[in-house]
Amino acid sequence: MSHKKVIVNPPATVANVVCGFDILGFALNEPCDELQLELSDEAGVQIVNNDEYNLPLDPEKNVSGAALLALLDAAPDVKGIKLTSKKIIKPGSGIGSSAASAAGAVVGVNHLLDNRFTKEELVQFAMFGEKVASGVKHADNIAPCIYGGVTLIRSILPLDIISLDAPTLHVTVVHPQIEVKTADARQILKQQVLLKDAIKQWGNIAGLVAGFLQKDYALIGRSLEDVIIEPVRSILIPGFDEVKEKSKEAGALGGGISGSGPSIFMLSKDNATALAVEKTMQDVFTRIGIDFHTHVTTINNEGVKVVSCE
Amino acid sequence: MSHKKVIVNPPATVANVVCGFDILGFALNEPCDELQLELSDEAGVQIVNNDEYNLPLDPEKNVSGAALLALLDAAPDVKGIKLTSKKIIKPGSGIGSSAASAAGAVVGVNHLLDNRFTKEELVQFAMFGEKVASGVKHADNIAPCIYGGVTLIRSILPLDIISLDAPTLHVTVVHPQIEVKTADARQILKQQVLLKDAIKQWGNIAGLVAGFLQKDYALIGRSLEDVIIEPVRSILIPGFDEVKEKSKEAGALGGGISGSGPSIFMLSKDNATALAVEKTMQDVFTRIGIDFHTHVTTINNEGVKVVSCE
Repeated sequence: MSHKKVIVNPPATVANVVCGFDILGFALNEPCDELQLELSDEAGVQIVNNDEYNLPLDPEKNVSGAALLALLDAAPDVKGIKLTSKKIIKPGSGIGSSAASAAGAVVGVNHLLDNRFTKEELVQFAMFGEKVASGVKHADNIAPCIYGGVTLIRSILPLDIISLDAPTLHVTVVHPQIEVKTADARQILKQQVLLKDAIKQWGNIAGLVAGFLQKDYALIGRSLEDVIIEPVRSILIPGFDEVKEKSKEAGALGGGISGSGPSIFMLSKDNATALAVEKTMQDVFTRIGIDFHTHVTTINNEGVKVVSCE
Repeated sequence: MSHKKVIVNPPATVANVVCGFDILGFALNEPCDELQLELSDEAGVQIVNNDEYNLPLDPEKNVSGAALLALLDAAPDVKGIKLTSKKIIKPGSGIGSSAASAAGAVVGVNHLLDNRFTKEELVQFAMFGEKVASGVKHADNIAPCIYGGVTLIRSILPLDIISLDAPTLHVTVVHPQIEVKTADARQILKQQVLLKDAIKQWGNIAGLVAGFLQKDYALIGRSLEDVIIEPVRSILIPGFDEVKEKSKEAGALGGGISGSGPSIFMLSKDNATALAVEKTMQDVFTRIGIDFHTHVTTINNEGVKVVSCE
């Protein structure tokens, strides 16, 4: 018996967004992964890797697999799922590679099931994938990957996701080819912070949300300041301070570490500036002698794209 | 020689607004003070009190006086100012009594000077008044008093004030007649907070700003949660927990300590609910046996009112 198939492109995402540690994220128009999903008569989740990353085939240890198992628990009429996964977003890059695997898988299957689950339910399923990836069920990549645009995760328990309507923003991302593990990046953070620093941080996140919703680019730029996480984590990323300073000189509104790094993102008002920022980033990492990839893109307002269905 | 006079009504304000400690405030339509201001040929600031509070007559020790001295420094062509002050907003109530004295004075004089100073400059002058009152140059009462509406103070240095366009909100305030000094209320706060609590707080302030700007009453309600300041400061206010719980049962969206207390404010969607909340507050403090005043009003979008000029 043959089943319907769907191909989806879950996008890369930027979490934290400087002053929004653990609560804010946005989706990018590229890069995206390519996942093919098919309902199956074989029970459980079968995984086929169509790339060089050798990701685990055991669904309980695989990010997409864990998300799909959570979905299957809520869909007892569905026997099994076959996933063919082609990762384009490099694992460990800090632009939501694991979130794309988890979110893409559940959005794809939901499409095959005539969208019986809400976006919020899909986020809940996909968070099981994030738990496999980093040990923490966070949603600041998952939510923008599924909802698109800029999303605020006001609370995880209970889950409270708010879409923020932002103006057009051009995003430049540089991924220096060094390894920063999410778990390590989390561990070096202090468990206590100074109240006066926390006040600065919530002034900035309030300013950033207002900047997005009021389409105030200057306010977005002024609010992109992180006095708590960035000073600690940026130590793990060679060239960080220079990239940030020179990107702003090149006209970027601001930016910082994407997720837990090592990627760095910068926001700009127009494509020409985003390209100038890319040049700056390339110059810094070329001079330091660290290999890198760059992406120049825009915020993706759609979330996971369903590209074909047969 | 006779000079132009102006009478202004600077309004009470609610600072902090639960999760916006030190960065958020809004103005009320009542109560308001009544200040009369007049340019004078006599150098410096002369103060006449037209109420029972015996506030200091030495301008350097008087909240309005200190603000006016700062303004005079920036207006060397103005010789002196005469202020007649009638306080309606009780000092020490936690609804911005000192801010009203400071803001009203400088807005009034600015009116006599054909509005030569910007609102931001007026905030800077008025902050000298707050310094006299509490030792700290904070702007979270001053800014809404001068700008009206809901204001975000993203940063004090440099000063960055953002007006947030909020939906119609009805405000119930109860002022239990106990004394909580701003300096004491500040001193009992811990200088360090848990990162996980700070994250909750910035999720909530981000949600509250989004709730205001997206006119989403339910989101405003969900975001009115303070895990850092309220648990400490509310201990100083007998009946606080009960007032909060019963006000929500009566339909309030949420609320908390106004400024550093002892006043408690609650936000509601309509006037009938705000009146039901008032009844609840009255019942609690009557039973506990603490004298109180209540106010049922709305957010004042105008700021200091210039009521007459001759």
